[in-house]
Amino acid sequence: MTSSRTDYELFDLGDFTLESGATLRGAKLAYKTYGTLNAAKDNAIVYPTWYSGRHWENEWLIGEGMTLDPANYFVIVPNMLGNGLSSSPSNTPPPYDQARFPNIDVRDNVRSQHKLVTEHFGIDRLVAVTGWSMGAGQTYQWAVSYPEMVPRILPFCGSARTAPHNKVFLEGVKAALTADATWNHGWYDTQPWRGLRAAARVYAGWGFSQAFYMEEAWREMGFTSLEDFLVDFWEGFFLDERDANNLLTMLRTWQQGDIGATPGFDGSFEGALRSIQARAIVMPGLKDLYFPPEDNEYEVAHMPNAELRVIPGVWGHFAGGGANAVDTAFIDQGLRDLLAD
Amino acid sequence: MTSSRTDYELFDLGDFTLESGATLRGAKLAYKTYGTLNAAKDNAIVYPTWYSGRHWENEWLIGEGMTLDPANYFVIVPNMLGNGLSSSPSNTPPPYDQARFPNIDVRDNVRSQHKLVTEHFGIDRLVAVTGWSMGAGQTYQWAVSYPEMVPRILPFCGSARTAPHNKVFLEGVKAALTADATWNHGWYDTQPWRGLRAAARVYAGWGFSQAFYMEEAWREMGFTSLEDFLVDFWEGFFLDERDANNLLTMLRTWQQGDIGATPGFDGSFEGALRSIQARAIVMPGLKDLYFPPEDNEYEVAHMPNAELRVIPGVWGHFAGGGANAVDTAFIDQGLRDLLAD
Repeated sequence: MTSSRTDYELFDLGDFTLESGATLRGAKLAYKTYGTLNAAKDNAIVYPTWYSGRHWENEWLIGEGMTLDPANYFVIVPNMLGNGLSSSPSNTPPPYDQARFPNIDVRDNVRSQHKLVTEHFGIDRLVAVTGWSMGAGQTYQWAVSYPEMVPRILPFCGSARTAPHNKVFLEGVKAALTADATWNHGWYDTQPWRGLRAAARVYAGWGFSQAFYMEEAWREMGFTSLEDFLVDFWEGFFLDERDANNLLTMLRTWQQGDIGATPGFDGSFEGALRSIQARAIVMPGLKDLYFPPEDNEYEVAHMPNAELRVIPGVWGHFAGGGANAVDTAFIDQGLRDLLAD
Repeated sequence: MTSSRTDYELFDLGDFTLESGATLRGAKLAYKTYGTLNAAKDNAIVYPTWYSGRHWENEWLIGEGMTLDPANYFVIVPNMLGNGLSSSPSNTPPPYDQARFPNIDVRDNVRSQHKLVTEHFGIDRLVAVTGWSMGAGQTYQWAVSYPEMVPRILPFCGSARTAPHNKVFLEGVKAALTADATWNHGWYDTQPWRGLRAAARVYAGWGFSQAFYMEEAWREMGFTSLEDFLVDFWEGFFLDERDANNLLTMLRTWQQGDIGATPGFDGSFEGALRSIQARAIVMPGLKDLYFPPEDNEYEVAHMPNAELRVIPGVWGHFAGGGANAVDTAFIDQGLRDLLAD
């Protein structure tokens, strides 16, 4: 499957009022689909993006012979609000541009996706929702917000509520980015490159496990030294058409993730977990440093129809990033088992 | 035991040539002692400081009724080169001041301490060496550099060689600090406060475990919210008479830590571990994120006379920081057992 940076669709969300009370007028949801929606409209899978990710960065899990085979399913990849393709600080006209771009909640993302799925495609029931990292958070939120539409979920390397330590890790990323005076409280003319590179270096320690670095598993990705990995993979990652305000918007979305905040649960995280009727396979990475398996274990213990299936190995959070064939096959098998039911 | 910020001694190291080839002329080693050196000069314990730490921040493990009781032992706490009390970027006159302060190796620290112990105090054999974190690194180095002087060691929450992931975590701290333009490549007139605070926030995710934050164990330390902990403990920590160039000097020392680089081992880490004749109790924190227990397990497997004793609980790296009574008692007991032999 080839990447498709310019080949995608924009869905007009109209005047979209956010959880914060702000209204994004003429808001846009960027998305790409893979495969064909059948006549019964019962073969659709939603697969949201992750922190900073774009639809083309989800494509490693889609393809001929894989579970998400476009010959069998209609896979919809909606881009998160704030990711630079959907409405974001970088592409919204004044007055809600740059530093004034409003706070986005996970529920805003899922509601915008629900509009796309129901109003644009006329789908009233999905086959499943799946996603990595913040995509997993959106997956849980789909199951809680629209239980009648979501019979199956497979969240991988993510959580239904952002843990306090995860919030602290993100505070470090944010502090590094915003320590660059060029950022100028969001009112910059050129990207704060130094801050973006600093944020990338902070992230590097979190994205992969201690054992990954000890084993120099980055060599499998084609990098030639530790510093080469830090510069070419990590700094390159944060410089690849990414934008400081966009990253900060998604960071805030992430920090506030909590299905328990959904109306109807009185703030109860466990209550929201118990409400999930979908059959679930929950797949943490064994050595994920910010979504540790024990957090998913707690979730699964409170979900009526869920299985915990830990992705083994040293790749940590990036077990779910499509960076190595073994973990990709493991996740693909999980999807196969889920969809076979 | 009361703190003693101004009450300490300075040992004149003379013209001290470093591993890098630079010579610090009139170099100083700041230290404090606790207890009395006996007539036989056979009751001394060396207890070096850690990253950014000063002698008074080691005092939680010293006191009446504790293993390191000044009534029984002569405890010498040497301050690391670069910590602001011993020769450092912040206190060295031109031309080796600020950004020109030379690279310091762990072996430079240990050799300067050896001079103090032998030349100033006339001690030819210690009871033990112990230390936390980078202090543990110096402890290992003592055992390798001066085996005839060191019959016992208790390194806690540290390692004999800085692991690649640990180097990456430190890259994040460094990148956050130096993203602040005020740092000015080390030629600042006022401290880069924004960078120091950013570095503190990056550090916050690493110093304590995911479970520590989940359980809000910071409440036991007297903090009233997560943000209060980030500001008052972490930012306060990095602003407490600390200096950006000093922190960067010690960071480089840490990154290059490796007993295998000691002359005589041909770069072999395992060879250096096998050479350690000292009886050792090695104490990692169960959930330490940058000195994970498996690294110490590897070390102990290659040491002829070593025991691994993991500090349980959720405090991560700060299990060794004197921040809670349970872990402090556990380490104190380890020292008691070690010294009883």
